[in-house]
Amino acid sequence: VTSPRDRAEAHTALGPGREFDAIRGLIARWGPAARGLGDDCAVLDVPAGERLCVSTDACVEGVHFHREWLTPREIGARATAAALSDLAAMAARPLGLVVAAVVPPAWRADFGELADGVAEAATAAGAPILGGDTSAGSELTLTVTVLGSAPAPLARAGAQRGDRLYVTGTFGGPLAALRALVHGVPPAAADRARFASPAPRVREARWLAGAGARAAVDVSDGLAADLGHLAAASGVRVRLELDRVPCVPGIAPLDAARSGEEYELVVAAPTPLDGHAFAAAFGIPLTEVGRVLGEGAPGVEAWLGGARVDLPRGHDHFSE
Amino acid sequence: VTSPRDRAEAHTALGPGREFDAIRGLIARWGPAARGLGDDCAVLDVPAGERLCVSTDACVEGVHFHREWLTPREIGARATAAALSDLAAMAARPLGLVVAAVVPPAWRADFGELADGVAEAATAAGAPILGGDTSAGSELTLTVTVLGSAPAPLARAGAQRGDRLYVTGTFGGPLAALRALVHGVPPAAADRARFASPAPRVREARWLAGAGARAAVDVSDGLAADLGHLAAASGVRVRLELDRVPCVPGIAPLDAARSGEEYELVVAAPTPLDGHAFAAAFGIPLTEVGRVLGEGAPGVEAWLGGARVDLPRGHDHFSE
Repeated sequence: VTSPRDRAEAHTALGPGREFDAIRGLIARWGPAARGLGDDCAVLDVPAGERLCVSTDACVEGVHFHREWLTPREIGARATAAALSDLAAMAARPLGLVVAAVVPPAWRADFGELADGVAEAATAAGAPILGGDTSAGSELTLTVTVLGSAPAPLARAGAQRGDRLYVTGTFGGPLAALRALVHGVPPAAADRARFASPAPRVREARWLAGAGARAAVDVSDGLAADLGHLAAASGVRVRLELDRVPCVPGIAPLDAARSGEEYELVVAAPTPLDGHAFAAAFGIPLTEVGRVLGEGAPGVEAWLGGARVDLPRGHDHFSE
Repeated sequence: VTSPRDRAEAHTALGPGREFDAIRGLIARWGPAARGLGDDCAVLDVPAGERLCVSTDACVEGVHFHREWLTPREIGARATAAALSDLAAMAARPLGLVVAAVVPPAWRADFGELADGVAEAATAAGAPILGGDTSAGSELTLTVTVLGSAPAPLARAGAQRGDRLYVTGTFGGPLAALRALVHGVPPAAADRARFASPAPRVREARWLAGAGARAAVDVSDGLAADLGHLAAASGVRVRLELDRVPCVPGIAPLDAARSGEEYELVVAAPTPLDGHAFAAAFGIPLTEVGRVLGEGAPGVEAWLGGARVDLPRGHDHFSE
C-alpha cells in the first residue's frame, strides 16, 4: 500500500467511519511497513518445511514505562522490539506482526508517533505490520503479537551437560538509565539508548542457531533470572561466571545480571562459537560466560571473584 | 499437560517466581485446553497447502463490557469468541490462540474464572491456548490473537454482481439485552445468552465456503455496517431486504440491522445455498437477505416495506 492509487483503493475498501479514518491514517503513515490491512484476518504463508512461532507481549503505561521518560515513538518501538525479541529467542525469522492498541484520549494526539515507532522497530527486524485493533480505554496499552518461522526453532529446553553458555552484547545499560531517571538525572546517552531503543537480536539469533546453538532465551527479566529459566526448562544446573559478563561502565557484574529489558540473548552450544566472526558481523560482542554442569539440582550457580554468590531475583509483575 | 507428572514437569520447567506461579495455576486450570506454554514462543504447524490467518482483538473493561453485567467467566469467553469470529469470517480452521491479560488488583481474585472463560470458548471452537502474557495495570484488558488456516481464505472483497447475500442466525438479541441492562432490567434469558455468550460461527463458515460462498464478513459492528464493509471491499452496491432479516422477538428489523457484537456471518454466493441443510447441520437459520446489484456506487441500500430507508451507523470506538 504505497502508491496514491493504492491509498485511494484502501480508502474505498475500508468504507466510512472515524475508526476506519484512523486505520486509513495508519496505512498512509506506515506505507510499505504495513501490508494487507483491512480484512477480518491477515493472510500470510509460512515457508514450506518451517514451523510457525508466535508470541504476544503487552506493554502497559505505568507498568512497563513512564510517559515522561520516553518519546511516543520510542514507546511504540520499544513495545515492538520487546515482542520481536521472543522470535529472536527461538531463532525464528519474522513473518510479521499484529498490534492491538488501547488509546486513551490523552494519547490520541501522539497516536501517529506511537505508530511510527511500531513501524520503525518492525521494519528494522524485517517484520511487516499485518493487522491490528484500536480501542478506547483509560490506560495506554500496546499488545504486539509476533509471527515468525524457523526450520527448527530453538527452545529453552535444549541445553545439555557440558554446553558452553554465551551472551550477546553488553549488560547493565537499561538499569543504569533507570537509576538516573528515577533520581531525575539525565542518563548517559549510551545507557538511555539501551533503555529507550532496544534492538532485538533477530539476525544474530539465526547466526547463532546456524553456528550450533541448541538452546536460547532472551533477557527480559535479567540475565540471572532468564538463565534460570533456561536451566529449569532444560533440567540442568549451570555455572555463571559473573566476572566474564560484559558490563557497561559504572555497572557491577551482579547488577548487570539483574538488569531487565536487555533483549540480549543467552545461548547454550556444545562446541565453541566464534566471537570474532560474530562481532565482525553484528558489531556487538559474543562472550562465553559459563557452562552447563554435569550434576546438581536444576538452577544457576553464580561465581564472582572466585566465590559463589547469591543471585538477585528477576522482575516479576505479580510481586508488585 | 494433564497428568500430575506433566504438571510437576511444567513446574520445574518454568522455574520460580510469582508470575510463573500464576502461569502454573493456569496450566493446571486449563488442562487439555492449553498446549506447550512456557517457552518464548509457541511453536505450531500450518497444514501443507493452507494459508495462515491471523487476527488480534482487544476487549477492554468499560469499553467493550461492564463488569456488573457479566460474570468473569462470560467476560473471558466473550473476548475469546469475538476474536475467533474473525477466523469464521475468513472460513479458517482455528489452529490456536494466544492471550495477553492486563489484570488490575481488583480482578486478581477473578483471574481464574476469566481464564476458565477463555478456555471454554477456545475449546468450543477447537482452538488450543498456545501462550500468553500477564501484566499488572489499572484496567482489565484481554487481547486475544487467533491463528487459523484455510486453503483459500474468504475475504470481504470477493462479492460480485448478481451474488445472493445470506446471514446466519437471528439478529437483535445483544441489542435487546443491552437495552434491558442499561435500564436496570433483567434481559430475557435468550437475549442475555446472545449478549453474554456469543458463538463464533467457525464450523458454519467452513460449510458456507464449501457450499460456494465467495465473500464473508462477521457482524461485530452491526449487520448494516458490516455489510457496508463487505460492499466497500468488493467495490459493489448491495440491496438489503430488511423485511427478510430474522429478528428476535420485540426487535424491529432496523434495530436488528444495527445490533452489534452479533458474531453472525454475512456471505455472498453466486448460487443458492441450502438453508434447510444448513439449519439441520447447525441448528440456526441461513437466510437470504439481499443481492449484489449490477450498478451504482459501492455501498448498501436498504429496503423495508417496499420503500428505501436510511441505514443506522455501526459502532465506532473513535466516535465516543
